[in-house]
Amino acid sequence: MSDLWTVTEHDFDPTRQRHKETVFTIGNGYLSTRGAFEEGYPRDHRATFIHGVFDAVPIVVTELANAPDWLPLTVYLNGERFSLDTGVIEAFTRSLDLRTGVLTRTIRWRSPGGMGASLVFERFTALADEHLAYIRCSVTPDFAGEIEFRAALYGASDNEGAAHWLRVAQGAHAIPDGPLPIAALQTRTRSSAIDWAGAVRLVATAGRRSGHGYWDADNAPTLTLRMKAVPGKVVQVEKCVAQFTSRDLAADLVRAAAVTRASEAPGWKAALTAQTRAWAAEWARTDVVIEGDEEAQIAMRFNLFQMLIAAPRHDDRVNIGAKTLSGFGYRGHAFWDTEIFMLPLFTYTAPEIARNLLNYRYHNLPAARAKARGNGVEGAQFPWESADTGEEVTPTWVPHFADRNKLVRIWTGDIEIHISADIAYAAYQYWRATGDDAWFAEKGAELILDTAKFWGSRAEWNADEERYEYRDVIGPDEYHEHVDNNAYTNRLAQWNLETAFEVLTWLRALAPDRAAALEQQLDLSEERLAHWRDVADRMHLHVGETGLIEQFDGYFRRQDVDLAAMEPRTRSAQEIFGIEGCNETQVLKQPDVLMLQYLLRDHYSDDQIRANYAYYNPRTDHTFGSSLGPSIQAIVACIMGEPDDAYEHFIRAARADLRDVRGNAGDGIHGASAAGTWQAVVFGFGGLRITPEGWTVTPRLPRHWTRLAFSFFHRGQQHRVDLRPEGA
Amino acid sequence: MSDLWTVTEHDFDPTRQRHKETVFTIGNGYLSTRGAFEEGYPRDHRATFIHGVFDAVPIVVTELANAPDWLPLTVYLNGERFSLDTGVIEAFTRSLDLRTGVLTRTIRWRSPGGMGASLVFERFTALADEHLAYIRCSVTPDFAGEIEFRAALYGASDNEGAAHWLRVAQGAHAIPDGPLPIAALQTRTRSSAIDWAGAVRLVATAGRRSGHGYWDADNAPTLTLRMKAVPGKVVQVEKCVAQFTSRDLAADLVRAAAVTRASEAPGWKAALTAQTRAWAAEWARTDVVIEGDEEAQIAMRFNLFQMLIAAPRHDDRVNIGAKTLSGFGYRGHAFWDTEIFMLPLFTYTAPEIARNLLNYRYHNLPAARAKARGNGVEGAQFPWESADTGEEVTPTWVPHFADRNKLVRIWTGDIEIHISADIAYAAYQYWRATGDDAWFAEKGAELILDTAKFWGSRAEWNADEERYEYRDVIGPDEYHEHVDNNAYTNRLAQWNLETAFEVLTWLRALAPDRAAALEQQLDLSEERLAHWRDVADRMHLHVGETGLIEQFDGYFRRQDVDLAAMEPRTRSAQEIFGIEGCNETQVLKQPDVLMLQYLLRDHYSDDQIRANYAYYNPRTDHTFGSSLGPSIQAIVACIMGEPDDAYEHFIRAARADLRDVRGNAGDGIHGASAAGTWQAVVFGFGGLRITPEGWTVTPRLPRHWTRLAFSFFHRGQQHRVDLRPEGA
Repeated sequence: MSDLWTVTEHDFDPTRQRHKETVFTIGNGYLSTRGAFEEGYPRDHRATFIHGVFDAVPIVVTELANAPDWLPLTVYLNGERFSLDTGVIEAFTRSLDLRTGVLTRTIRWRSPGGMGASLVFERFTALADEHLAYIRCSVTPDFAGEIEFRAALYGASDNEGAAHWLRVAQGAHAIPDGPLPIAALQTRTRSSAIDWAGAVRLVATAGRRSGHGYWDADNAPTLTLRMKAVPGKVVQVEKCVAQFTSRDLAADLVRAAAVTRASEAPGWKAALTAQTRAWAAEWARTDVVIEGDEEAQIAMRFNLFQMLIAAPRHDDRVNIGAKTLSGFGYRGHAFWDTEIFMLPLFTYTAPEIARNLLNYRYHNLPAARAKARGNGVEGAQFPWESADTGEEVTPTWVPHFADRNKLVRIWTGDIEIHISADIAYAAYQYWRATGDDAWFAEKGAELILDTAKFWGSRAEWNADEERYEYRDVIGPDEYHEHVDNNAYTNRLAQWNLETAFEVLTWLRALAPDRAAALEQQLDLSEERLAHWRDVADRMHLHVGETGLIEQFDGYFRRQDVDLAAMEPRTRSAQEIFGIEGCNETQVLKQPDVLMLQYLLRDHYSDDQIRANYAYYNPRTDHTFGSSLGPSIQAIVACIMGEPDDAYEHFIRAARADLRDVRGNAGDGIHGASAAGTWQAVVFGFGGLRITPEGWTVTPRLPRHWTRLAFSFFHRGQQHRVDLRPEGA
Repeated sequence: MSDLWTVTEHDFDPTRQRHKETVFTIGNGYLSTRGAFEEGYPRDHRATFIHGVFDAVPIVVTELANAPDWLPLTVYLNGERFSLDTGVIEAFTRSLDLRTGVLTRTIRWRSPGGMGASLVFERFTALADEHLAYIRCSVTPDFAGEIEFRAALYGASDNEGAAHWLRVAQGAHAIPDGPLPIAALQTRTRSSAIDWAGAVRLVATAGRRSGHGYWDADNAPTLTLRMKAVPGKVVQVEKCVAQFTSRDLAADLVRAAAVTRASEAPGWKAALTAQTRAWAAEWARTDVVIEGDEEAQIAMRFNLFQMLIAAPRHDDRVNIGAKTLSGFGYRGHAFWDTEIFMLPLFTYTAPEIARNLLNYRYHNLPAARAKARGNGVEGAQFPWESADTGEEVTPTWVPHFADRNKLVRIWTGDIEIHISADIAYAAYQYWRATGDDAWFAEKGAELILDTAKFWGSRAEWNADEERYEYRDVIGPDEYHEHVDNNAYTNRLAQWNLETAFEVLTWLRALAPDRAAALEQQLDLSEERLAHWRDVADRMHLHVGETGLIEQFDGYFRRQDVDLAAMEPRTRSAQEIFGIEGCNETQVLKQPDVLMLQYLLRDHYSDDQIRANYAYYNPRTDHTFGSSLGPSIQAIVACIMGEPDDAYEHFIRAARADLRDVRGNAGDGIHGASAAGTWQAVVFGFGGLRITPEGWTVTPRLPRHWTRLAFSFFHRGQQHRVDLRPEGA
């Protein structure tokens, strides 16, 4: 069954590399590296992203800077450089072992000059020591002569043309136990002035050395090893790289730290043992077993792996971007994707990671308050797109996809305000699931109270209708901009306000000092609380007699389009109708109302969910709308007792990046979709529900599944669910 | 008097380097290289720009790509890297010999470890062979041991953060006569796919060699030479670099061409002899002698030097950008600056360069016609900003200078239409000055006829006033946007139409076949010509009874601001009043009407010029308005018989970059200002006028000038003017 832990390809298609680089991303929660090749190609999209290392860019504000490249390891066969764009590729396999995070590439290659060899490249970024990364290269020649290895650090990385790094210093540092020194490079981001240092160690572990050298070339320090080539005899080298940034320690220490770490680092074998052990611990709490569906099993593990390598374990000042750390898409910015799609996975399987992510929002409360103030309201308004400081980093304008010289106004940073309630919701869920009262009293309560303050302040009183409203917003369904009273936004705002009272009651009873401090700090006067009560009680909520909820004011009057009649489609509804045109229809990028009912499950009857499912499901652009939709859709379909429909949505989400179903996986992993598959399986097919009394499971497995097993933590205790349908 | 040929500085101020790099730019008409230091610093703005090597960038469309760096030459004194940011600078001098184009830097430096040495770096880009560039480095140590030189080509150049180059290949090529090979690098621009290749040769010419090496580090091939250090004994190396691009020859030949050229290139001494000879020929026809004013003399030669190094001698598909090839400003784009400010210098001193520049416009007629078509009009509408193809490359939006996340709409590319008449004017002037009838029949006539076609088509008939108008334009004075009937535009359009008739008459008489071909190609029907006549005759021209010309409809009704009362200012009027605010005043960035009267000098009486000078001069933002203004202002002041006022404007233009009077010389040389100083001296102080009958001189020298001498070509014959005021 070991291949249910492996993502493999057996052919080399140069035109698919951008996608494949995303799929074969490895990482350790500190950094991730795309699956580009060690030898490098001019048109590859090689990248290593380190959490928190942002730098300014024009127009789109700030981005994760593609770090100096630790990958370069070039191989010369009797002087001919190994390269897939010359010579003959006689065999090619690349596989990612999800169990250990080791990426292996095996090539049989013949050079233009006729030298033949099998080459094996293996690499991993250490989970046991997040500053270390390893490459091992084994070459078995069919010729006699010399094989040369060159291991470099390359400082001039760029973000698809945007150069972020300035060289600071470099040099070689002798070590006692080898002929080669350790080579080090230090660089600095242009605007944010974050220092990065890397140190590289190169050792031969099989074969006979015939020479070696160090090249102190500016911005490309390079270690070289020349080895005797004997036909049929393997030669092997190990490249070990240590990396630190001035986010870890003082800028004047990063280079020494990297050199020291590289010199003290264990060799490949010992490091791999530690790696295997560290990953085993991760999988022990995170793995989901699916039997009867090999594709689903591998895809499930692949998506979990992608989340695990992006999750910050030792840093609570960073968040996971919408494209994780695996691509240039959305420039490393974090969205509500974290709180609504990713956080449940961590809350229930790795609560300390969930806490790190929530702490990021807590630390960024000052920026959220400043954003609210800038908009003339009170409380904490979180940014739609968030990077290092928590300031709003949504670009105001972006180039038009069809005409790069035209610009499109992006409104989400101005008016997609639901994210503040999403963050409050995630903090509350974390608290309820973990029972982490200490954290909640110290940080979580403040998140919920200060976002409630925002909602109280942002609400507008409609005197004619005698109700409170949120006008000119964008809901999760971004096909509709500038709407009034989006149902998702209004109801979650109401939830946020109501929950604030619950939080305050709890805090006053169990942490009265903290309650008093927050009441003073946030100015929670009687008058303000009375206003919250009023806003919550008289919120405009759109619920009709049948339980059908109108997505926003006037939605039902928009043009009704028969999406089914347009199948098969190859473009999104928005591309077909245009941005303005789509806005005038009822077609949804994702169904806000169903999402709302999933989040506030206990507040809606099954009948009411059914009424809304019947209405909104056929009006949703499942195939080319939001990549966030399918996993939630799968859960709602499970609730509706429609497992076939649910499976279709689930597998669409599970395949999103492995099969590149949307054609943009090259930009990076769809993080919300990847984490959403866990929710689909656990809350959908597994039917897990957490209640104040405990938890229940209502299995609704796809017909062909013979087993579903997973674990989760609830209030500090791990529970294991193992479901086998009768007769399986 | 040799120091009247030298720009020198005697101290090293790290904070002024961006400006100084511009001042110490060298070049040869093929490429220019800013005066950044060989050893490189993270925050320098090192750049080499090669004519025509453009590559796409977001928002601002396209830019001259900063070429791979040929400068790197680092020096190690007993292992310590020479660097101005460590150790002690005991002496520092940098000087540019304008007579030969050799840039010399002399430093006395002591390393942190106590090694002392004097270092001399000399460099030039060869005028005699535009593909070659040289650096010579001489080091005299006060210690014993070793001095190491490292000479590299560095492929990862960027345009202030925008990376344009992808590595293609590199390697070493043995040469018979030295221990070191020639190292070569080939790279390619990302979007435009222009290949660049460089080859570097490093030889020792004084001292004893103790070792050498070649480092094949990716994207940074490096040659090393280690030399014995003996106290008081000079060691010297020469770096020679050859460069070719796929604009010169096929992409698969550029590397071989570079290697061959580098291996065959003469050594420093022979190359310098050729360089001196080539520059002597340039100065023989271009130099302007000013006596009695050393600053003016040096500044004059500096400005001429800057124009000469930017002028394409062997390429008629490129133009000179507004910032020449000396900085990142305006991204290498060319404006009307070329035709109105720079071209007269070349037309009268180096006609073959003027012809190359006009041919660039001729070759780009297809793009100009496409632009007209796109705007629903006929003929040739030249782009306001022009790069490689002649398409409009003015950015539509640019980031706001005060808030980079806001965007400002740039209208010049849409409505600053006078450039089409400016180009026609320059073609006509070239023809009249040179008598180059063959060129004019083949190319120049078409430029004038097809721009006339544009003006005929673009004119709007105002039935109420019974006149033709050009509405919604921007004149040269860019403080006023979206104006109707800009006097400069309307009058030059009229001139263009009238001149078209003269051209057609001449062509029909002297080149009837060409006339017939053009009449058919451009559809010059009787009806069209009658329409041109009508437009020219009934053009709205704004001339009042006193001869005072209103700059545009309603200008006199705008708010009249007392600029003099605001002195001393430190900001432009536009910055003080804001873009919108300034638009509502009569304050000018530059005086369109005076510019018009200068260009069409024969059409205006001195009295009429005086009336307009009296009105517009005090309303012009001379200090912080357009850098194009002062030189023309100087000429008009000369015509008015106000040499003191003229001198003030002239010296402001002459100092623009040497003294960085506008604070932005770091972005590159103000090309129009530099070339405009030549017009100010020759047509202003010298009073040269070219008439159909010949030429006249009416000297109006500044009081303290004792001599002014210059030469010019008229109809193929060189004339020399040598003016010494009586009593001088």
